[in-house]
Amino acid sequence: MYGSSIGNQFRITTWGESHGPALGVVIDGVPAGLPLTEADFVPYMARRKPGQSKFTTARQEADTVEILSGVFEGKTTGTPLSLMVRNQDHHSADYSNIADTFRPGHADYNFTQKYGFRDYRGGGRSSGRETTARVAAGVVAEKILSELGITVTAYTLAIGPYYLDPEEIHLEETCDNPLYMPNASMADKAITYLEECIRSKESAGGIIECRVDGVPTGLGDPVFEKLDANLGKALFSIGAVKGVEIGDGFNVAHSIGSENNDAYMISDGHVTKETNHSGGITGGMSDGSPIILRAAFKPTPSIAQEQDTVDADGNPRKLTITGRHDPVIVPRAVVVVEAMTAITVLDAYMSTMTARLDYLKAFREKWMK
Amino acid sequence: MYGSSIGNQFRITTWGESHGPALGVVIDGVPAGLPLTEADFVPYMARRKPGQSKFTTARQEADTVEILSGVFEGKTTGTPLSLMVRNQDHHSADYSNIADTFRPGHADYNFTQKYGFRDYRGGGRSSGRETTARVAAGVVAEKILSELGITVTAYTLAIGPYYLDPEEIHLEETCDNPLYMPNASMADKAITYLEECIRSKESAGGIIECRVDGVPTGLGDPVFEKLDANLGKALFSIGAVKGVEIGDGFNVAHSIGSENNDAYMISDGHVTKETNHSGGITGGMSDGSPIILRAAFKPTPSIAQEQDTVDADGNPRKLTITGRHDPVIVPRAVVVVEAMTAITVLDAYMSTMTARLDYLKAFREKWMK
Amino acid sequence: MYGSSIGNQFRITTWGESHGPALGVVIDGVPAGLPLTEADFVPYMARRKPGQSKFTTARQEADTVEILSGVFEGKTTGTPLSLMVRNQDHHSADYSNIADTFRPGHADYNFTQKYGFRDYRGGGRSSGRETTARVAAGVVAEKILSELGITVTAYTLAIGPYYLDPEEIHLEETCDNPLYMPNASMADKAITYLEECIRSKESAGGIIECRVDGVPTGLGDPVFEKLDANLGKALFSIGAVKGVEIGDGFNVAHSIGSENNDAYMISDGHVTKETNHSGGITGGMSDGSPIILRAAFKPTPSIAQEQDTVDADGNPRKLTITGRHDPVIVPRAVVVVEAMTAITVLDAYMSTMTARLDYLKAFREKWMK
Amino acid sequence: MYGSSIGNQFRITTWGESHGPALGVVIDGVPAGLPLTEADFVPYMARRKPGQSKFTTARQEADTVEILSGVFEGKTTGTPLSLMVRNQDHHSADYSNIADTFRPGHADYNFTQKYGFRDYRGGGRSSGRETTARVAAGVVAEKILSELGITVTAYTLAIGPYYLDPEEIHLEETCDNPLYMPNASMADKAITYLEECIRSKESAGGIIECRVDGVPTGLGDPVFEKLDANLGKALFSIGAVKGVEIGDGFNVAHSIGSENNDAYMISDGHVTKETNHSGGITGGMSDGSPIILRAAFKPTPSIAQEQDTVDADGNPRKLTITGRHDPVIVPRAVVVVEAMTAITVLDAYMSTMTARLDYLKAFREKWMK
Repeated sequence: MYGSSIGNQFRITTWGESHGPALGVVIDGVPAGLPLTEADFVPYMARRKPGQSKFTTARQEADTVEILSGVFEGKTTGTPLSLMVRNQDHHSADYSNIADTFRPGHADYNFTQKYGFRDYRGGGRSSGRETTARVAAGVVAEKILSELGITVTAYTLAIGPYYLDPEEIHLEETCDNPLYMPNASMADKAITYLEECIRSKESAGGIIECRVDGVPTGLGDPVFEKLDANLGKALFSIGAVKGVEIGDGFNVAHSIGSENNDAYMISDGHVTKETNHSGGITGGMSDGSPIILRAAFKPTPSIAQEQDTVDADGNPRKLTITGRHDPVIVPRAVVVVEAMTAITVLDAYMSTMTARLDYLKAFREKWMK
Repeated sequence: MYGSSIGNQFRITTWGESHGPALGVVIDGVPAGLPLTEADFVPYMARRKPGQSKFTTARQEADTVEILSGVFEGKTTGTPLSLMVRNQDHHSADYSNIADTFRPGHADYNFTQKYGFRDYRGGGRSSGRETTARVAAGVVAEKILSELGITVTAYTLAIGPYYLDPEEIHLEETCDNPLYMPNASMADKAITYLEECIRSKESAGGIIECRVDGVPTGLGDPVFEKLDANLGKALFSIGAVKGVEIGDGFNVAHSIGSENNDAYMISDGHVTKETNHSGGITGGMSDGSPIILRAAFKPTPSIAQEQDTVDADGNPRKLTITGRHDPVIVPRAVVVVEAMTAITVLDAYMSTMTARLDYLKAFREKWMK
Repeated sequence: MYGSSIGNQFRITTWGESHGPALGVVIDGVPAGLPLTEADFVPYMARRKPGQSKFTTARQEADTVEILSGVFEGKTTGTPLSLMVRNQDHHSADYSNIADTFRPGHADYNFTQKYGFRDYRGGGRSSGRETTARVAAGVVAEKILSELGITVTAYTLAIGPYYLDPEEIHLEETCDNPLYMPNASMADKAITYLEECIRSKESAGGIIECRVDGVPTGLGDPVFEKLDANLGKALFSIGAVKGVEIGDGFNVAHSIGSENNDAYMISDGHVTKETNHSGGITGGMSDGSPIILRAAFKPTPSIAQEQDTVDADGNPRKLTITGRHDPVIVPRAVVVVEAMTAITVLDAYMSTMTARLDYLKAFREKWMK
Repeated sequence: MYGSSIGNQFRITTWGESHGPALGVVIDGVPAGLPLTEADFVPYMARRKPGQSKFTTARQEADTVEILSGVFEGKTTGTPLSLMVRNQDHHSADYSNIADTFRPGHADYNFTQKYGFRDYRGGGRSSGRETTARVAAGVVAEKILSELGITVTAYTLAIGPYYLDPEEIHLEETCDNPLYMPNASMADKAITYLEECIRSKESAGGIIECRVDGVPTGLGDPVFEKLDANLGKALFSIGAVKGVEIGDGFNVAHSIGSENNDAYMISDGHVTKETNHSGGITGGMSDGSPIILRAAFKPTPSIAQEQDTVDADGNPRKLTITGRHDPVIVPRAVVVVEAMTAITVLDAYMSTMTARLDYLKAFREKWMK
């Protein structure tokens, strides 16, 4: 299966299935000299971890990241980082009832058509568990960005009908609720809604927003490697995402030019924009304002209701998915959105370092003997 | 500037600025044996061409595609296709008034920051004129897809507040109006709206929808090379796009699992889906239903009103953009969306050909001596 | 460190240092349906394994390959294969005497200059131990090629002054001696020579030849992705290789056209060549004859003699490298050359599958519904 | 045909056939700010140009390079450079006698097998004329390298049996003879030899050597993106090359460790090597010494003698190639070797700029606001 890598200079390659012995990621292009220990991964893996609340699966995943290469005496060496997370309960036989039946909303059918058979154990490579590896890579990207003065922050913007307007976002409240929603009272409403979903054997969708602060002007390129194009790919590469927006997003369709344009002004001697309808990216390049992006997630496809489907032999079947499943994907995906954003922004940063002959010359003078 | 290529096996590399001598594209990975002449490009270039109505710029662009390589005796040879379009009036000096001022909504400021200076002649590489090359490449992709039974169709779904619901789409009406809107009466309303925009020195946004029919099951890969991830990148790589959706798009955020899941059924002996909320892609792979995607375009940033901005020396400036500019980008971008979609789907098709050992063995037996 | 991947459709990414906890490789693009078990790796790892004779280091490396992903119920699934080999004795402190001194012939000095510091434990990422991961990937490539009727065979052509002429090559004798030399009596002479090297605290170089049989005509592309260009890169990417030849190699420089051209003839109704001066590749594409290539390896740089060098502070130093080191790299590199060749040929095979519109159409008709 | 691009950050894509309307190259990743005019290309194209002496074809090729994009007001803008060379006499019908017959030593047969047909006009894409585009790209690379203090110099080391030993190389004599051989008297002997080749309807091979001076330490990466691996690929990608060596090359096979190792020493306060057996590259990275590489070229396959071959219908044929052909490829290929070397070294330079966290931080502080 072609396609387990993303990025150019900072390039990650993930591997692993939901019920194999382990999952992991190899990161090529990590600059030498970054302090890194296994403890750095713990808080991020905890954010993705299930079993934290009744809205996430009970499966116990320790999700300890092992560093297998690329670090020596506490710092990255410039060689590829290999990070691995062992699967704890991968021998379970919970999935036998779906081995020959295609679950609606999952990739069972088209996976089978493409590869000739499938790993029916919980989705295999198509499982959300694959994102464990992305989060691990995101930790490294965020640490590097942090050294460069760039921070990435993702949070839940909406669960089902409960949607936060910009003025309702209070980032300091994000981590105080299991939904990672930056508004405690809206989170309470969403929790009530999710409890009702569970009772009615339903699942809910939602929206994650991500912002990047401290972005220098000029990241991204004007044509295919536009920063928004790569962010769009990065977010659509997360399972269950069906829509992505930058800045004003779909609202631009019914806006008008004089409203949508961000006027330039001088503030403290620097060029800045009066507004940020662009979401920090104009013409494919960062424009100095914070980057704002959103991804819409579909409801968890695994629901406890009986559904119509067919089996591998082409017979109609009624399928009831058993076991515990998250009624909503969003809270655990927040850190995944953050990771993919960080990876993409860092890669764009690196590619910018060769944009001018001036840069190449300064590099020789200062560094290359 | 890194980033003028997209695609893996079917890979296009565009070049050219709005006011240079020419623009073009090199397509690597064109299979041998496709009949191709310069006449094939004419209807597509006409769809993108300005000057067709009062809603598009008056600039005369003949936009004749020259085939410089890759075709011999009327068929592609398997070598790279080099396609070129000459710029007709590239010596114009219309842009002198903006040479040292940053136009709001354009990439002037961040381009300058990144590269140290900019081509102030109409946006240079960041101009929408760059899409000429994409349309030329799209023609080749669409012709190949057509041989494979796959068709790509784009149209205007919305202009400003005028939005078509699915039941209002009548594809046979698409080409009867200058907006490429598949509903004649809605197009009339949108035209009235655009006329008002012109009078008030404003511009409008809109939405383009694209559908792909005849798609086999299994195109795309489960992780980063998801078909929707690559389509997302392809559409976000078009200037002015601020949002992309697949299938139900952002509406999935407030849907519930039992509604959003597409049940499988048997129809005429084949597996099919009862509904298509997924927009034809599940888990990153085509699922056999038509692919449905949408892109939101911001209003044309060049408006005839006076705007606040700054110049290259950091002084506040009032800027009034002169010359004729489209009040809306959408109609001319329809064929661009179609082109980028076709290029992406074809590339995914090609990468699928090595997915199984069976395929490799059959290839040796049948073709490779 | 950018650059731990090679290949396009069949793409390997290696990771790991000589003295880290493990080394490994992720292989993306493995077709689904290949039977594969951990036992498949044993004979290949044994060929690369040290401690087999007095000419290879005594370090005990079990080199058991673990399959961490990509195989389900005994067959590849199409998802990335993750293969890992644990390092057994990676906590050794044998290298303290060289921690701040640059070993002649090794990459210590330039590694330090580039990355700001180095992993002094046996070369770290620059160690020959990195090839363990390549051999594991080569096993997979060779198994797939075998299903396609293609076999890859490498052997020692020369050790120091002991060089085999074509008529002296007896492949059936290759595995009967620790040098993998296909001529028992020449191997005896080379062994005597190596024993003398050890006594005199010297090391020896040599040449490995590799042949590929059953190659279909047309693998490789006419410009940069020439099959010989990619084979050249693959072989030069093996540490210690200083020269690569295809077919007649450097001898073509003093040949003449009528001798060097391979005439075409008809044999059993098929086009074939009367001779194979080309080494099976003409104009970058396989020409139907066996592929013949050779790589020259320099003498092991770690020798027991005192050598002049400098330390990290710029002081002149006398360095005597202790510990056991192979007096020649060649025998253990034979399987590495074979692996890199197999990976490259398979990748070229895959890219050929999209060369003609006929192929795309036949694929749709037969496989894609 | 996949494979018309090479390079990562500095990436060239060539297109065009020997008898199409034009050939060209798109260069992506050119840093902004490099002064460039069409006159810069003239001396390099002249070196590649035929018709300069009786040893090169009489075909008149003006080979004027047109800059179609990427330059504004005399400097590169950072956008892709599109360079084009028109073919002057591409309507000639000289090749009709070989349209259905496979020329020995050329790619006619395997091209036909792969693509289903071929462009019989002088080799089409497989013609040496494709290198025109490479030379144009090399000019840009060499100009950038020159700004960085790096120079690339190629020359003829051998023609047939006439081979220069290192002490016989006098670079100042290179351009005084039509063979670009840095030794006037050896050039005279080689000229006499070539005259004899012409009389006897034969052709000759030879060796080109290339050296790179001013190379900083640390270009290239330790695994697959080794600088020598990429140089190997670049040189093998030139048609007719059958062998490539770095430094001592194949002679290392019969050297011994104490001779082959380059001892480090301090000279003028800098680390340097006492010798340069490595050819300036150790462990895949530049080691501070000049880079020395050699490529062996086979004799021109087009010879005036009658040769045995077969036609497309599988009949034995006698073929006598008419028209004027160079009796040796080497002199015109000297500038091609120089170009491919420059492109490769520049690309390695660029990738080195992200090797350390220090570099990323310094870049932000100095350049990125």
